Amino acid sequence: MITAASNSRIKRLVSLQQKAKARREAGVFVAEGTKMFLEAPVDRVREVYVSESFLRDCTCRERLLQTGYEVVEDSLFSKISDTCTPQGILCVAEQRPGDMRTMCGRDFLLVLENIQDPGNLGTMLRTAEGAGVGGVIMSRDTVDVYNPKVIRSTMGSVYRMPFLYVENLADALLELADAGVNICAAHLHGTQAYTQADYRKKTAFLIGNEGNGLRGETARLAQTWVRIPMAGSVESLNAAVAAAILMYEAARQRREA
Amino acid sequence: MITAASNSRIKRLVSLQQKAKARREAGVFVAEGTKMFLEAPVDRVREVYVSESFLRDCTCRERLLQTGYEVVEDSLFSKISDTCTPQGILCVAEQRPGDMRTMCGRDFLLVLENIQDPGNLGTMLRTAEGAGVGGVIMSRDTVDVYNPKVIRSTMGSVYRMPFLYVENLADALLELADAGVNICAAHLHGTQAYTQADYRKKTAFLIGNEGNGLRGETARLAQTWVRIPMAGSVESLNAAVAAAILMYEAARQRREA
Repeated sequence: MITAASNSRIKRLVSLQQKAKARREAGVFVAEGTKMFLEAPVDRVREVYVSESFLRDCTCRERLLQTGYEVVEDSLFSKISDTCTPQGILCVAEQRPGDMRTMCGRDFLLVLENIQDPGNLGTMLRTAEGAGVGGVIMSRDTVDVYNPKVIRSTMGSVYRMPFLYVENLADALLELADAGVNICAAHLHGTQAYTQADYRKKTAFLIGNEGNGLRGETARLAQTWVRIPMAGSVESLNAAVAAAILMYEAARQRREA
Repeated sequence: MITAASNSRIKRLVSLQQKAKARREAGVFVAEGTKMFLEAPVDRVREVYVSESFLRDCTCRERLLQTGYEVVEDSLFSKISDTCTPQGILCVAEQRPGDMRTMCGRDFLLVLENIQDPGNLGTMLRTAEGAGVGGVIMSRDTVDVYNPKVIRSTMGSVYRMPFLYVENLADALLELADAGVNICAAHLHGTQAYTQADYRKKTAFLIGNEGNGLRGETARLAQTWVRIPMAGSVESLNAAVAAAILMYEAARQRREA
């Protein structure tokens, strides 16, 4: 059992929880809670840590025997946890980024520019999986998908949804267009209501930053600009909500086609 | 200028920020930031507080002269603010709850049971306004709509969207049904896809708690149960996302009718 805060593994876990750079360099991330542990593909789980009291009342013993685990003293576990009320289990899992070739082969994509709120990003991945999206491409300045808050709000989609950070979003959009993907920007100045465009062909929705929307040079690379009609005095919708409305309209059209 | 943390107004502001009970008893709430101050209807603003440095660079001087204001020392302002990086302006505004008679007269409503996440509730109000919803009814155990985090995520909709907490949600639903409103529950066991129901008639969407969904006895009071189809291994969607998808499908049908 690990009991000392000075233990090198404890120090490493804290650093993996807090720093995107540490996660990137090690090619891993930390997933917390029973649900996230049980949903993690076994071949991607590198290490598992449980608190003493979690182990005592644990309902996932079988899986723990498969993956192996280390016990951590209760008070120390709260140090390596990112939550205020830790469930008492976390695992270190392998990152597995997607690639542009895979993305170009999909017929339904989500492309994100500079999304900053971890909860929004996590919710977008979860909703994207639900809507049948085949991959998510993100600009380099989007918040780290392996941030513990993002991981939690994906509710497991982080293991299943192929995604990719790209250095140059413009290049990626041009590559998608070459692959026959219709790039469709959500824009306050969209020329048509989002329900009037056809999403049954290969489609990528392009969603911009929460406060500022899409950069002009990025929006210009879209073939279609759509707007979500807004009643009342609403100036814009939450980015994850806007993405959800678009993705589910595409899913509706594809279902009813 | 207020400089002492012991000042009775400062103590009252802190209490209004932190306690739903204090807000309820005083019939007011605190709205922070320039946007929320500028969007507040002047007749509902009771007090305004600005930090010294906010006042120096302020761009809303005209409105401040209309409402009147008190200056608070910078370091003290951070004590009355609910945010980590306060903008330096907040106002105390009157609560103005809606009533059941108004709700029964509307043809598009949102009914919430036991929503717990402040960000979700705020986002739902914002999206509801955008979708053209005429009122929001909430069970008593829903998080306080005047919670500072809810206020922020409404982006101003809190001033404009009529809403009401009801002691007994079942009674309210029966009253809506009597008024000819079709109550439509979002449910994982919905008998039809949400896109197959008709929302052009008087409609109320019924959304349940983030973790547990609707209580059985509440769901039973709905005339229609709809489900949102989910691809992949997604078990449920975020509550604010689910509400958004439903409300915007209704808006689409009404637009295209």
